[in-house]
Formats: sequence, C-alpha cells, structure tokens
Amino acid sequence: METPVALLGGTGKLGPGLAMRFARAGVPVLIGSREAEKGRAAAADVTAKLQAVAPGAAAVEGTDNLDAAQRGRIAVITVPFEGQPGLLPGLAEALAGKVVVSTGVPVRFAEGVGPVHADVAEGSVAEQAAAMLPGSRVAAAFHSVSSAELKRLSRDVEGHVVVTGDDAQAKQVAFELVHLLPGSRPVDGGRLHCARYSELLTVLLLSVNGIYKTHAGVMLTNLPPESEG
Amino acid sequence: METPVALLGGTGKLGPGLAMRFARAGVPVLIGSREAEKGRAAAADVTAKLQAVAPGAAAVEGTDNLDAAQRGRIAVITVPFEGQPGLLPGLAEALAGKVVVSTGVPVRFAEGVGPVHADVAEGSVAEQAAAMLPGSRVAAAFHSVSSAELKRLSRDVEGHVVVTGDDAQAKQVAFELVHLLPGSRPVDGGRLHCARYSELLTVLLLSVNGIYKTHAGVMLTNLPPESEG
Repeated sequence: METPVALLGGTGKLGPGLAMRFARAGVPVLIGSREAEKGRAAAADVTAKLQAVAPGAAAVEGTDNLDAAQRGRIAVITVPFEGQPGLLPGLAEALAGKVVVSTGVPVRFAEGVGPVHADVAEGSVAEQAAAMLPGSRVAAAFHSVSSAELKRLSRDVEGHVVVTGDDAQAKQVAFELVHLLPGSRPVDGGRLHCARYSELLTVLLLSVNGIYKTHAGVMLTNLPPESEG
Repeated sequence: METPVALLGGTGKLGPGLAMRFARAGVPVLIGSREAEKGRAAAADVTAKLQAVAPGAAAVEGTDNLDAAQRGRIAVITVPFEGQPGLLPGLAEALAGKVVVSTGVPVRFAEGVGPVHADVAEGSVAEQAAAMLPGSRVAAAFHSVSSAELKRLSRDVEGHVVVTGDDAQAKQVAFELVHLLPGSRPVDGGRLHCARYSELLTVLLLSVNGIYKTHAGVMLTNLPPESEG
C-alpha cells in the first residue's frame, strides 16, 4: 500500500479512530483539517493515545487539508457530508490520479424523530465525491464502522465493511484499508451507485443505536468463506 | 397471535416461503392471489412440501386476495412492490383495524447494471402501504430474508430481521412473526420512515448476491443480548 494515508477533514468523529487503527497497523497517516493547527492537535492526541498501547505505531502527523491531499498517496474523506462540497473542489487537483475513499453518510438528527437521511442530488455522498473529483479513483467504505468502537483500541471492530466503487484499483485499496482493522472484513457491495444503500444502512444503524443504546455494526450471513476479503 | 395469517399476493417469491415457515410453526396461513385458483395451487404446493418434513404443520389454504384480507387476522403483504398500488386500495376496508406487515423492496434489475432501487413517492414501500391502508396498523419486516433460504426447510434462516413501524402493537406482532422463523431474531429499527433504509439494504444484499453467487442475509453486531426480541 502506498503511504501516507491522508484523512481529509480528519479531526471529526471518524478521522481520529481510523488514524489510530491505521497507524497501529504500521501505516503512516496525515490528519488534514481546515486549519493546520487543529490537524496537529488531533494528531498529537492520537499519538499520545497510541503511545500507551502501541509504542511501535507508525507516525500520525497533522496538517491542513490541502497539504494532506498533496502528500497523501491515498486519501480517505472523513469530513461530515455537509462539509464535502466546501472541501473537495479545492482538492481536486491535488487528488488527481489518486485513490480516494468516501466514508460519508448523509444523515441529520431531526428533533423528536432521530436520525433521518438527507437527500444528495448525486444519489450518494460517494457519487457526489466522485463528481467533485473527476480525476480521482473513488471507492466508498467504512460507512457502518462505529467511530466509538474504532477508538476503543482494546477491542477489535468485528463486522463486515461494504466496499463499493466503479474502479477496481480503488476498491482493492479500500479492501486493504479495511484489512488494517482487526476483526473487520471487506465485502464487495458492487458499483459506486450502490454506495447509497451502504450509506443509508448506517442511518438504520444509528436508529438502532438510539433504541438499544449501543454502537451496532453489521455482518452479512451466507457469504462464501473463500470470497471474504 | 391471532390467526390465520393472510399472505396478500402470496404466490410469488416470498409468500410460499413464509407460508411454509409459519405453518410449520403451527400458524394457519391463507395464501391470497389475484385469482383464487392460483392461490389454491400455491397452497397445495406448499402443503405437499410441508407434508414430507412437517406432517403436523398447520393448514395452508389458498384463496383470492380479498377473501384472504377479510378472513386473515393479520396480513403480510408479499406482492412485488410494483403490484402494491393495484392491490391495496381495494383491500383497505377488509384490513381496517388489523395489523399489516409490509415486506416489499423497491428494486428493479437494470440491464448490465444489476439491482437498483426504484423511487417511491411516499419514501418507502411500507409508507406507501400505510398511506393506502389508512385504517390499518402497519409495520415493516422481512426485507432481508431470502426467499430461497426460507424454502430450504432443512436449514434455519440465521440473521436479524429489522422491524420498523409507528404502531407499537403492529411492531409486536411483526416481532412474533419473525420469531416463527428458527434462527431469525427481530431487531427494532425504529419508526416506519426507517423502513426505507431496511428496504434499500436488501438492494445492497441483492448486489452482493450477484457478486458472490449467494443469498446473503444480515446480522447486526454489538446488540445487547437481553434486547434481542
């Protein structure tokens, strides 16, 4: 795998958790933020937490999103979906030719109702990313992975991670990234337009989480064992 | 549970499988069809298959959809989603006051692409059913259950079945119906608007099925054991 992996908008919920898991697996990470200073603070926090449990982890460095996009060999978009239109167009040149993995879920929390999806004109957050990064190879993954579980380093994150995409190389890289999380197994969910279903599954998981007070993940049944990852 | 259970449009893919499982669990079933004769033929087929493995199963009777709706104490809509608008309005009176479980998935198979969702103006097939049956108590369930696996009576259908709905009693009945399938456990997925996510998850499963040549189901991880159904 080409490294470092850039986490764009990596100071939010998913970014630090993925940074910990990727770095612990030996993959150097760049945490990008709107302000380099915030990226550095998040990286310092991740590094401190890793030091306690995985002193041999790879480096986690903080910077601004453009620098992360330029220096990263692979990029993972971890900005909340509403922030994507303000972020990606300015990074299109830096990300040209690279594999970019979309993780966004189009969800909002409606007062008295709970999690509901938001409509995305392109069909899914992943397709929107692909439209904004015409020179990149976009796959989608990690929608169902709980940020809280990622950060709990003492436990594996058991479950399947659905990977979708129209570019075989991008999907392959996404599979490799999923394999960096102990307990997680990638599943090929099909073309990029199927990212919509994987994204909305997370809205369902968030509804379940609210009811059962948990961080539910997903496992598919009846998959042929030899086809797993 | 009040019986019999009516399977509306029950001669298709899901209906016979559910009929076998429900009847084997001791619950009498009415298979409704556009033509009573087709309903009777499907019921005879199910009865013959059950006789071989479960001689003590409850009765499976075939009839037309209106008669099934009138005599059924609970109804499960098993007609393909495109057929729903032509079926339900004529049954609204017969189904008034009853629990009705929607199982439809808005999917079509696009040439060279595979399974893609169809837009439903009401948001989901379940919400469309609720709109067409204003006097009924609608829940949604069974979206992720494979018809092929249901019919393979030698095996349990392992997995979670997401149940959604706005009516607590309807959800409770749907939970009880799920418990009739050995290996299946109901999960509360939230309000009826969340049926959309559960329906679209099945489109994802169909995509996975096409890739892995299987009949995938779904299991949620991290659910508190005591909360399971």
